[in-house]
Amino acid sequence: LIIAEAALETVPKNISRHASVTRHATRKGKAGTEILLDRSYHHKAMLMLDNADRRGRPDLVHFALLEAVSTPLYRMGLLRIYVHSIADKVIFLHEKVRLPKSYFRFEGLMEELIKEGQIRSDSDLLMEIKNMRFADLLSEIKPSKVIGLSRRGIKSDATKIATMAKEDAVLVVGGFPRGHFSARVAAGMHQIYSISDYSLEAHVVIARVLYECEKLVK
Amino acid sequence: LIIAEAALETVPKNISRHASVTRHATRKGKAGTEILLDRSYHHKAMLMLDNADRRGRPDLVHFALLEAVSTPLYRMGLLRIYVHSIADKVIFLHEKVRLPKSYFRFEGLMEELIKEGQIRSDSDLLMEIKNMRFADLLSEIKPSKVIGLSRRGIKSDATKIATMAKEDAVLVVGGFPRGHFSARVAAGMHQIYSISDYSLEAHVVIARVLYECEKLVK
Repeated sequence: LIIAEAALETVPKNISRHASVTRHATRKGKAGTEILLDRSYHHKAMLMLDNADRRGRPDLVHFALLEAVSTPLYRMGLLRIYVHSIADKVIFLHEKVRLPKSYFRFEGLMEELIKEGQIRSDSDLLMEIKNMRFADLLSEIKPSKVIGLSRRGIKSDATKIATMAKEDAVLVVGGFPRGHFSARVAAGMHQIYSISDYSLEAHVVIARVLYECEKLVK
Repeated sequence: LIIAEAALETVPKNISRHASVTRHATRKGKAGTEILLDRSYHHKAMLMLDNADRRGRPDLVHFALLEAVSTPLYRMGLLRIYVHSIADKVIFLHEKVRLPKSYFRFEGLMEELIKEGQIRSDSDLLMEIKNMRFADLLSEIKPSKVIGLSRRGIKSDATKIATMAKEDAVLVVGGFPRGHFSARVAAGMHQIYSISDYSLEAHVVIARVLYECEKLVK
């Protein structure tokens, strides 16, 4: 599973001195560029950013990730999870990592990950982050098939997607609040499907498709 | 859908003067008894509470609720959602309410709801909270059947549960971090089923069962 163009990144330099950022960063005892860009706090500063409506929603990424790591499929070791961010960084979750359910702790963990490049617990590497475009990630994991999921895709359903996803395919779900995959990311996909007539949140798509995948495992 | 014995309540009076509570409340500009009990912040104070391991996890309730309100089933108006809290209050979500995805905003909303008794937007009533035990809630909604979902239930699966849940049945999912329904709540159920060999988070159970219910609607 790849959560692509995820709205999770630290505050970009050009707005790191904006009042809404410095106030929030000071309260957290961090530098402006060390905290996650978050529309709840930095709405005004974000007016100065390109592509602002697709950024600053680490809460959505948190839900999408929790949905994936909470599945028996992941806990059985049958699922690998990657987060490709809109800032072209890729987070690698190592096997059976547990994520904090508290948003407050998740935020701290992501800030540490971006700053340090990895998260370890004793000797184990739990997570890593690397500068990588979506295409670079695909070259590294070499999936048999790349299946995008988007409201704009060809009409299908979660059961069919699960059947197609067997054998080293990768499923790609957007980690942004609105809109569609950028042309650059869509270009890496073999096909894009839609699993509902409704526009579904990333976490709902993930819950449904992984559940159907799990049914095929039993 | 009822999320039962949910770990969402304001800080009880007997620990509202504990340092970890007053520090947190002061930062938020609220009284100790006006803020949500939250293990992330009030861990030490919670050592003095009964039943502490089942309390102070409003984040879990947030996920479970978001999972439910994000489904097309709810958006089609085919699902009613109630949160019965461990403090024996019941939150009534009126039709097609949207909930904040940001935990920070959800927390504020719940604090306001508990303080004011209701949340309105212009003339519409969005949410209400009433003092009510689980049994009182069942008397009010008069479901045809009460189906509990718990790891300890009779082995079944989400598809079968969905078939049973048609025609005004109520599904009950626990809103607590560990353990099982209390005897008092379990007594109100006609039957308790388990949908997985794994112990699933409330939000995963909700995602799966509602998805299977939705398939039956089409």
